[in-house]
Amino acid sequence: MHDIDKLISEMTLEEKAGLCSGADFWHTKKVDRLGIPDVMVSDGPHGLRKQDIDTVDPNESIEAVCFPAACATACSFDRELMLSMGETLGEECRAEDVSVLLGPAVNIKRSPLCGRNFEYISEDPYLAGELSAAYINGVQSKNVGTSIKHFAANSQETRRMTCSSDMSERTLREIYFPAFETAVKKAQPWTVMCSYNLINGEYSSENDNLLNKVLRDEWGFKGYVMSDWGAVNDRVKGLAAGLDLEMPSSNGLNDAKIVEAVKNGTLDEKVLDTAVKRILEQVYRYRDVKGGEHIFDRSADHKKAADIAKECMVLLKNDGALPLPHSNAKIAFIGAFAKVPRIQGGGSSHINTGNISNALDSAAKYSDVSYAEGYERESNDTNPALLEEAVQLAADSDVAVIFAGLPDSFESEGYDRQHMRMPDCQNELIDEICKVQENVIVVLHNGSPVEMPWNDNVSAVLEVYLCGEATGEATADILFGKANPCGKLAETIPMKLSDTPCYLTFPGDRHAEYNEGVFVGYRYYDKKEMAVRYPFGHGLSYTTFEYSDIKLSDTAVGDDDILTVNAVITNTGNCAGKEIVQLYVADKSGFAVRPEKELKDFIKIELQPGESKTVTFRLDKRAFSYYNEELGDWYAPNGKYDIMIASSSRDIRLTAEVTHKTAVKLPFVATENTVFGEFMDYAEGKATLELLFSKVAKGLLGGDHFEPEAVRSMIGSMPLRQIRSFGGISDELLQQAVDMLNKDFGGFKAQM
Amino acid sequence: MHDIDKLISEMTLEEKAGLCSGADFWHTKKVDRLGIPDVMVSDGPHGLRKQDIDTVDPNESIEAVCFPAACATACSFDRELMLSMGETLGEECRAEDVSVLLGPAVNIKRSPLCGRNFEYISEDPYLAGELSAAYINGVQSKNVGTSIKHFAANSQETRRMTCSSDMSERTLREIYFPAFETAVKKAQPWTVMCSYNLINGEYSSENDNLLNKVLRDEWGFKGYVMSDWGAVNDRVKGLAAGLDLEMPSSNGLNDAKIVEAVKNGTLDEKVLDTAVKRILEQVYRYRDVKGGEHIFDRSADHKKAADIAKECMVLLKNDGALPLPHSNAKIAFIGAFAKVPRIQGGGSSHINTGNISNALDSAAKYSDVSYAEGYERESNDTNPALLEEAVQLAADSDVAVIFAGLPDSFESEGYDRQHMRMPDCQNELIDEICKVQENVIVVLHNGSPVEMPWNDNVSAVLEVYLCGEATGEATADILFGKANPCGKLAETIPMKLSDTPCYLTFPGDRHAEYNEGVFVGYRYYDKKEMAVRYPFGHGLSYTTFEYSDIKLSDTAVGDDDILTVNAVITNTGNCAGKEIVQLYVADKSGFAVRPEKELKDFIKIELQPGESKTVTFRLDKRAFSYYNEELGDWYAPNGKYDIMIASSSRDIRLTAEVTHKTAVKLPFVATENTVFGEFMDYAEGKATLELLFSKVAKGLLGGDHFEPEAVRSMIGSMPLRQIRSFGGISDELLQQAVDMLNKDFGGFKAQM
Repeated sequence: MHDIDKLISEMTLEEKAGLCSGADFWHTKKVDRLGIPDVMVSDGPHGLRKQDIDTVDPNESIEAVCFPAACATACSFDRELMLSMGETLGEECRAEDVSVLLGPAVNIKRSPLCGRNFEYISEDPYLAGELSAAYINGVQSKNVGTSIKHFAANSQETRRMTCSSDMSERTLREIYFPAFETAVKKAQPWTVMCSYNLINGEYSSENDNLLNKVLRDEWGFKGYVMSDWGAVNDRVKGLAAGLDLEMPSSNGLNDAKIVEAVKNGTLDEKVLDTAVKRILEQVYRYRDVKGGEHIFDRSADHKKAADIAKECMVLLKNDGALPLPHSNAKIAFIGAFAKVPRIQGGGSSHINTGNISNALDSAAKYSDVSYAEGYERESNDTNPALLEEAVQLAADSDVAVIFAGLPDSFESEGYDRQHMRMPDCQNELIDEICKVQENVIVVLHNGSPVEMPWNDNVSAVLEVYLCGEATGEATADILFGKANPCGKLAETIPMKLSDTPCYLTFPGDRHAEYNEGVFVGYRYYDKKEMAVRYPFGHGLSYTTFEYSDIKLSDTAVGDDDILTVNAVITNTGNCAGKEIVQLYVADKSGFAVRPEKELKDFIKIELQPGESKTVTFRLDKRAFSYYNEELGDWYAPNGKYDIMIASSSRDIRLTAEVTHKTAVKLPFVATENTVFGEFMDYAEGKATLELLFSKVAKGLLGGDHFEPEAVRSMIGSMPLRQIRSFGGISDELLQQAVDMLNKDFGGFKAQM
Repeated sequence: MHDIDKLISEMTLEEKAGLCSGADFWHTKKVDRLGIPDVMVSDGPHGLRKQDIDTVDPNESIEAVCFPAACATACSFDRELMLSMGETLGEECRAEDVSVLLGPAVNIKRSPLCGRNFEYISEDPYLAGELSAAYINGVQSKNVGTSIKHFAANSQETRRMTCSSDMSERTLREIYFPAFETAVKKAQPWTVMCSYNLINGEYSSENDNLLNKVLRDEWGFKGYVMSDWGAVNDRVKGLAAGLDLEMPSSNGLNDAKIVEAVKNGTLDEKVLDTAVKRILEQVYRYRDVKGGEHIFDRSADHKKAADIAKECMVLLKNDGALPLPHSNAKIAFIGAFAKVPRIQGGGSSHINTGNISNALDSAAKYSDVSYAEGYERESNDTNPALLEEAVQLAADSDVAVIFAGLPDSFESEGYDRQHMRMPDCQNELIDEICKVQENVIVVLHNGSPVEMPWNDNVSAVLEVYLCGEATGEATADILFGKANPCGKLAETIPMKLSDTPCYLTFPGDRHAEYNEGVFVGYRYYDKKEMAVRYPFGHGLSYTTFEYSDIKLSDTAVGDDDILTVNAVITNTGNCAGKEIVQLYVADKSGFAVRPEKELKDFIKIELQPGESKTVTFRLDKRAFSYYNEELGDWYAPNGKYDIMIASSSRDIRLTAEVTHKTAVKLPFVATENTVFGEFMDYAEGKATLELLFSKVAKGLLGGDHFEPEAVRSMIGSMPLRQIRSFGGISDELLQQAVDMLNKDFGGFKAQM
């Protein structure tokens, strides 16, 4: 092992400052004098984008395997699968001598328009946290680091480098932080990548609260923080705030600023030493492990990509048209994506792969399939000849499978979508085919939801998302029933763009106002009682599942208890299948404004026909809690909660009730502006009430008992100060009342 | 005339401080030594609530005439009617020696749940401003003052005295300010009443920006500001901020604080003198005009209340069931409100009237009408005997007119509604009657929208709101066709509570987050493309109107032009009627996020059968503008606008397009964090681009021409600073680029 402290003590100030930024686009700096090696980092996260030269051009990276993008793998709801995919990627990194794979990307899908949504996991922070922790554990099991990104609140591409994501502390804590928090606590990533954007006016790259206090002090992160590429604004401030490594190189400009800051005393050299230590710890952690021979087996990994893809696709609708018959039915595959599927998005995650399967060729083993292109793959406008040919083919067939979705130019890192529609030519194609063919199946390739105006006219819809290089074979296996679809939506598919939670404010310009607060995704659609096209957690199978026998370990729990929830799931259909069982918790106490329900756990199980299994969940206090800003902590109000076992967020199969009782008191400091409602029903407030009543005409305070209810409401909203003018009491008496309240409550108040 | 300056110079410090708060609940202070008289102020605004003694109890006010509340008069869309009603109220005040009538109340209806909505005018600031200005001009024409209230952003009752209404400057300027602004500019109220609440953390009663800068410096308000009753928090700070008169008396407590502050130098005595002067100017303005004999003619004013009521009621739906036949059809009036209508809301506006007409008695002159009570007026629960009797009567009749609505306890000043439903017993009554009677008419008495789950099952709905003491006779006249309904909704009736714009945040507790921004009322439902029960501006007549021949005076206008819009309206039905013609403007430039359309003018016209009239509107720059926060002023973007002539906000009859071209430039100051998109297409930015291009590898900036569109978008979102790390340029060159931009643009940028 290396004595890093000793090494640092031997480094010059310039060497230390230099180590805090890259040597180029992809490497840390060496210090040959002291034998300090460099390491390489490479883009991910659904494959290895290792660049051969100093550039960001994705066309110049090594040939690698493109796994399904996060928009797809999220639908697996499968921790083991994410772990396994991470292991494979870690192995690829070792083989290519890459020390850190830049991923996973866990930013919350706030709007379907975010150009980078295809790289992100979910609208739900619990799901994003669980899957990313598993992925990280997988990669890091190979002694390769990860860099969970982009910390934090980077949910739009528009002006991402200068826009401030403005929101309440509660919203940050409940929606935009937990995926990172879970990953740190469950998987301890070697590195964290800070985001380009500002949060409430402070750049993430120089945000002391974000990087030092929350990430390190509260969550216990041990690795180093690196900047997103070019995210550094003020390098010296950033270093003090906990940003250890700037990427890419600043060509020495910022190194010199660090040196100068230490010399002129504006930066404590200890801060620099700490950053260097954090970086070197991970450099040596990688370099010190030689391990055995590592092989990047592109053929085996392609097969793995296919296996994963089959776990990701979501069967949104099926009137019985799927699976396709293996008989001699006339099957038409229509649409350019059938031959050249869209398998990933554009930008830093773009994998350079040559081994892409398509559904048309892959279907050959099941059936003769005819084909028409239907539309030009990258165009919005209809090509009449292609349309006519496709409609004719559909009319002459027994079933038309239309491959549709978003062209590359419609969604990418770097800019946001302008609307939620598919290209006009594709919607027109579907409409025209529906006029001549009753049996229409739509297969979608897209990184983020699209409007589906034709939804009610088609027989089935399979959401493939961007499912990697083995998309074609996996799609064919699903369509022909070789594989049973089991993915579920990791995001809501709304009816139309204007339904989305942040429609009025997305995207921000200089400020992105996160005005919907915690009501993101299904939390919004549920609260607003809105119809959606397909709800979060929805996904069909070729078999069916019955839910029964919900059992709670207790009818009431306290802050330190674990509630165990059991339920029995039975495969009631005719084929084996997997079901993603979801557990939601609903706070019925009414204490705070909260989502109607929130995902708190999920389990994926495989069942043979007729087979039953018991699923078991364990819930702790956090599962009942919201972030209480006054307390500065998670708080689970007293009251009743529904425990819901569900097949989707809008298909609740079983419900049981539990009571939560907390011992936590909330801060209560009385002032002249404290309203009567905050204390008038408390024993601790009785003396103060009596004091005031003895001095003030009772009529003005509504009589002894504050009845009827209307008077109670009015008094409840009245501040102590008000009785100075309405009751004519002196400042001294008012102060006496305030003091008495603070003494009798002792600064804290239990929830009634 | 009195020399007020001289009077003030003769007053002691204590006398001056004393004049800045009331003598009691309703009077200013006298100074006998100097012959300064007191004056009385009294609650309004839809009648005179003059108290005989020092109390706020509405049961102890003088007997007066209760006109329709603002929720109803707003539906008249009738400036002349508001003026005339104001004149009558002014006359009543003179007769009763009341110097200031405390009204109108113009707070924006942000949520249907606000308990005080019945007193407020509209969800639309233009309508609220126009009607309140007319009302003020009416009252003040009698040399009686008004006090427009509650300034500002007081749109909830919950914790109204301690809750901060938090919103952007733009939202304040576009939604919550304009009703006050219009009233000040068009009617110069003698006084303004500040609200209880805080705005962005500052009490309205001590808000220098609100009371001194915006109200006085910007809008030119000349009168005095008084506090809402008990709204004073820090009296000395308030005085400096422009709050002249504290109401009610602080029993000398705050007077002493003012004296002390002047003595210890924390308050400039000139500030006190100014406040005293403002108060005395209005005191003498009232006292100095003796005028002739004034009479409070309760009988004539009752008749006036009836005439006004008929202009207010809104026929929401009519399948032909109305008007009722005068023949010997069997007509049943069902529901307690038929006999004892709800005519006004509870709280400070509650008028003590004994002369209430009801629809049942008033109908007698048209037809025999049978009656069943149906439900207990103040109850939520069904009385089975009453229900059964009513259903039986309905079954035995040819038509059932159900009088329903909200009991007094469901809405009042002082607390907010908990939900948007009518009492269960009333909804059940309607449902049960619909099962036995095809011909059901619902007449609603409520101060704010209710959910109407039975809407599709009934033949007609008449929204009466709270229509004052002559409700009964006016309702009968409308129902039997003696009067033709002509009111239109001054607010949207949504389908359900969860549809409402601020559902997720209403009501606030310590902070009310106005997160919907400018998207209040129809601005929200339109933008979100939502179905509503009845749209803003909707209202039927017993006749029909045709719209034709829209003509604009020009196809393009500039900042200083007036656009004249003409259209022809024709009565195409069989009876005389009035139509409220609405003009909306829609910004199609896409420059800013704005409502789909906004009300910018309205005209009410009366037409005989077959008659046509031309309506004429004049629009200035403000009609095209939104409040641009960077500019700190109203700004009408370059581009195309639709001018819509409409019968309701969702019944646009005529549309014409006009182009607006502005000479106003927007501030532009470049920094390291200025994004390329802000200058790269401007001639003024060309030199800077060339400077950077000569130094930086072109590949990193996307080539000479920023093509294709995707690259343009990415570059457009990139700050100058970014090329420090991606392009390796020095701080000096970066600063040179920034300086060059600032020089070449000169601090301002025209809209492209």
